[in-house]
Amino acid sequence: MSEIKYKYTNLDKTEAFSKLQKTVKPSLKELLTVDRIKECSIQAGAGLTYNYSAKAVSEETVDTLAELALEQELIQKYMAVLSGERMNTGEDRKVLHQLTRGQCIAPVTENGTDIGAFYAEQRQRIADFSDKVHRGEIKGSTGKQFDTVVQIGIGGSDLGPRALYIALEGWAEVNSKSMMDALFISNVDPDDATAVAASIDPETTLFILVSKSGTTQETLTNQAFVLDIIGKTGPAGLVPAKHMIAVTSATSPLAKSDNFLDSFYIDDYIGGRYSSTSAVGGAVLSLAFGPDVFDALLAGAHDADMRALEADIRMNAALMDAMIGLYERNVLGFPSTAVLPYSQCLSRFPAHLQQLDMESNGKSVNRDGEPVNYATGPTIFGEPGTNGQHSFYQLLHQGTDIVPLQFVGFENSQRGFDLNIDGSSSQTKLNANLAAQITAFALGSDNSNPNKQFNGERPSSLIHGSDLNPEALGALLAHFENKVMFQGFAWNINSFDQEGVQLGKLLTKKLLGDAGDEDTSILQAYFELLNK
Amino acid sequence: MSEIKYKYTNLDKTEAFSKLQKTVKPSLKELLTVDRIKECSIQAGAGLTYNYSAKAVSEETVDTLAELALEQELIQKYMAVLSGERMNTGEDRKVLHQLTRGQCIAPVTENGTDIGAFYAEQRQRIADFSDKVHRGEIKGSTGKQFDTVVQIGIGGSDLGPRALYIALEGWAEVNSKSMMDALFISNVDPDDATAVAASIDPETTLFILVSKSGTTQETLTNQAFVLDIIGKTGPAGLVPAKHMIAVTSATSPLAKSDNFLDSFYIDDYIGGRYSSTSAVGGAVLSLAFGPDVFDALLAGAHDADMRALEADIRMNAALMDAMIGLYERNVLGFPSTAVLPYSQCLSRFPAHLQQLDMESNGKSVNRDGEPVNYATGPTIFGEPGTNGQHSFYQLLHQGTDIVPLQFVGFENSQRGFDLNIDGSSSQTKLNANLAAQITAFALGSDNSNPNKQFNGERPSSLIHGSDLNPEALGALLAHFENKVMFQGFAWNINSFDQEGVQLGKLLTKKLLGDAGDEDTSILQAYFELLNK
Repeated sequence: MSEIKYKYTNLDKTEAFSKLQKTVKPSLKELLTVDRIKECSIQAGAGLTYNYSAKAVSEETVDTLAELALEQELIQKYMAVLSGERMNTGEDRKVLHQLTRGQCIAPVTENGTDIGAFYAEQRQRIADFSDKVHRGEIKGSTGKQFDTVVQIGIGGSDLGPRALYIALEGWAEVNSKSMMDALFISNVDPDDATAVAASIDPETTLFILVSKSGTTQETLTNQAFVLDIIGKTGPAGLVPAKHMIAVTSATSPLAKSDNFLDSFYIDDYIGGRYSSTSAVGGAVLSLAFGPDVFDALLAGAHDADMRALEADIRMNAALMDAMIGLYERNVLGFPSTAVLPYSQCLSRFPAHLQQLDMESNGKSVNRDGEPVNYATGPTIFGEPGTNGQHSFYQLLHQGTDIVPLQFVGFENSQRGFDLNIDGSSSQTKLNANLAAQITAFALGSDNSNPNKQFNGERPSSLIHGSDLNPEALGALLAHFENKVMFQGFAWNINSFDQEGVQLGKLLTKKLLGDAGDEDTSILQAYFELLNK
Repeated sequence: MSEIKYKYTNLDKTEAFSKLQKTVKPSLKELLTVDRIKECSIQAGAGLTYNYSAKAVSEETVDTLAELALEQELIQKYMAVLSGERMNTGEDRKVLHQLTRGQCIAPVTENGTDIGAFYAEQRQRIADFSDKVHRGEIKGSTGKQFDTVVQIGIGGSDLGPRALYIALEGWAEVNSKSMMDALFISNVDPDDATAVAASIDPETTLFILVSKSGTTQETLTNQAFVLDIIGKTGPAGLVPAKHMIAVTSATSPLAKSDNFLDSFYIDDYIGGRYSSTSAVGGAVLSLAFGPDVFDALLAGAHDADMRALEADIRMNAALMDAMIGLYERNVLGFPSTAVLPYSQCLSRFPAHLQQLDMESNGKSVNRDGEPVNYATGPTIFGEPGTNGQHSFYQLLHQGTDIVPLQFVGFENSQRGFDLNIDGSSSQTKLNANLAAQITAFALGSDNSNPNKQFNGERPSSLIHGSDLNPEALGALLAHFENKVMFQGFAWNINSFDQEGVQLGKLLTKKLLGDAGDEDTSILQAYFELLNK
């Protein structure tokens, strides 16, 4: 494997960024035409299309964003990721989540081992295990077939897999792919595990313990918590360890333990928030919907990954999305972005993207550890439409800050059932609302009553497709991963570590264990406040 | 009733705001002491305490905030609200949600009618109805007892009641107050109603249709949708209209219709996002947990309302919270705020606060319709801790923007069950994490590795109490309502209308109905994009 050459430059040291700051922001009211709506579409994988017609970017701005992508060598750096270079520089690790869904360029090897083959092997082991559970060849310890799976994990071991499970529940029901119900335990709050444990039958439930390091406080606590409960509430003869599998790294304290029915492995090259397409998401999704459904999701993600290699920004949806977002953040100064899926099944997808984006790009130092002089990752939030329209959209339409919007929509509903009421189906109403919102945000509406004045000029993009099936969901997931990656490279930050979560863990340990002779008086005072 | 006198002044025209901009922002590292943590506590109602020790405000800043509150006559304007003046100036309406939980000062009358008595009457009618349902005196049309209630509503008819229901589910189980399961349908996406309808037994389900105007598109569509499904899936003899009650205004098209088993009323003085303590929340919560639980919630809210009348900012939690938030928004320039409850049962409380705050204060014109020259309502988002710690906290700790934080925590868990694992209970771990986060955000930690550097100086507040019971939940709800109200008055905007949601509705109607001879080509083009 030949080393790919590239250089690391801060955004504000690039020529293209200086040029970008001088571009003229066009008026959306002047820019937006029916032709533009048709022209500003880019295939995003698995039949999805990214449309940026309602973004306030002229052809000149797009050209300059393309120059910036070229100057920051974004495609080259993405190829370095795919080639297995150690692009997580702070932790000196490869970044290989794309490899979990397929090989984009050459094989990635380490000490003679093909890492892609390792991921594929784990995927096959999970498929075989899932099939055996579904066929009843692997049963609970009292002889009953498993019908429920409970994932115990937090952060990336929870948000992504949970969002994907919820996103496919309706599709699976209609397509006879509902193999097992899935539930999730994440919070160390005892109410979380207690509520889930009360709702399941220990005899027919399979737990998945997910912790890459094998040391996550919340997850190990919830493991012990759950084992205790099912030991107590299950019938005599129930062997808790026969109701739990592990997803962890081969080097973790959990690996190859007798405490699990089976174990499946990831490695240090899969970051938590990027792990949904590894065994972390693979086990629960294969058990819930069957391994073929998980395979279809990976195929969709792989399609999006391949498309993100395209050099022409006008044909690369993830790159265009990334660069427009950077323009809005660093030139227009917008501090947050809302993700607004017009699909109830994507109800928790914004929470996953919130982690993906904010944990990846919420950084203040560049790859050399120097403070950057510009804004990096924005605040991300969102709820499904049309719900959000009756909630926070007021601020989006008329607030003093402009919030760029990412809409997502589909031609068809997922569960297929619909009714014509007052001349239109619910799905038609849903999409009419979506079209109306994009238009209202962009064009606004003048009114002599200033309370009813809409200035418009509020930019949005739209990702759309015919159906939210496993392939489309995989492509949607990968689109945002690749968007975030490109932005991180453009900002010259490391999107793949998360040192900012460590201090809290450290202080928690001091409170719960031995703080030595350190001054922990402030810490103690807050703790006492909570416990009086 | 004597008219209360006050004047409306833009924030930037006040003397106190000029003074506030000149105050020196202290360093949290220098400010924060064990004594300060003890001293900066204010009772917030029903046993809750608001603590602002980790806010970067000196005594001088607090004094100036008090001056601003005085100059903007915030308590006087709150008294005007309570007195029934038409403080929703844009819509020329009274603002009476506080009156739904008790009378704070004098009775509010209109045309000789005591409006508080009207709210109390509806509350009593709901209590009587709920008792009859629980005793089996009111049954489904096929003779079976109701065991499930489904609320059909959107925005304020959904987010608040849903958040409160989820917040009390565990408490109700432990305290033998689980009378009926509650489910919610909000989205016009047919997948929402289809999924809920598939999970219930039509014979034992009571639906609550909630729409103040009686014209909400999503809600009426879902009503028809649900009636069709239960008509089809229920047994012969099931009369759908005997399975549905309405909560609406007495003047709406839904009122006094034969299509409902019963109807309960609100009026135009209860805004959607402030309606959880009216019949909008009252019906579903009384049915789910019993009217006494709803009464307890109201009592807690009323306690917080009374405390918000206190003139001394150092003894008024809602006022202090509001003024510090304004300082952070308008002087320090922070664009968003995160709400972080360390309690799994508050999982949807941030979504309610997102509506409450962003829909109330996401405005750009003052009460006279003139554009304001300063930032108003911030972006609000949040997820429960400790989940968020493994997600977006990276950006909160090390991102380029500072995001003020509102923590919420309780001494005890709600469901009562807990285990000692590795020397501490889960609840202890939960609160150790919370104390650690407040400390880490404020004080940071120096490290020679810049990736591991935490600058600290990131402000947070904490609302804490012993238990999240109905009283505490009511106080928590009212605290934030009153905070938002005070901020709106300080910004001189109308927090009680929501004209920003109208344009989207109008354009949707044009798409679905007759647009006349208007040019709807852009609208149509987006609609076609979604449907091809």
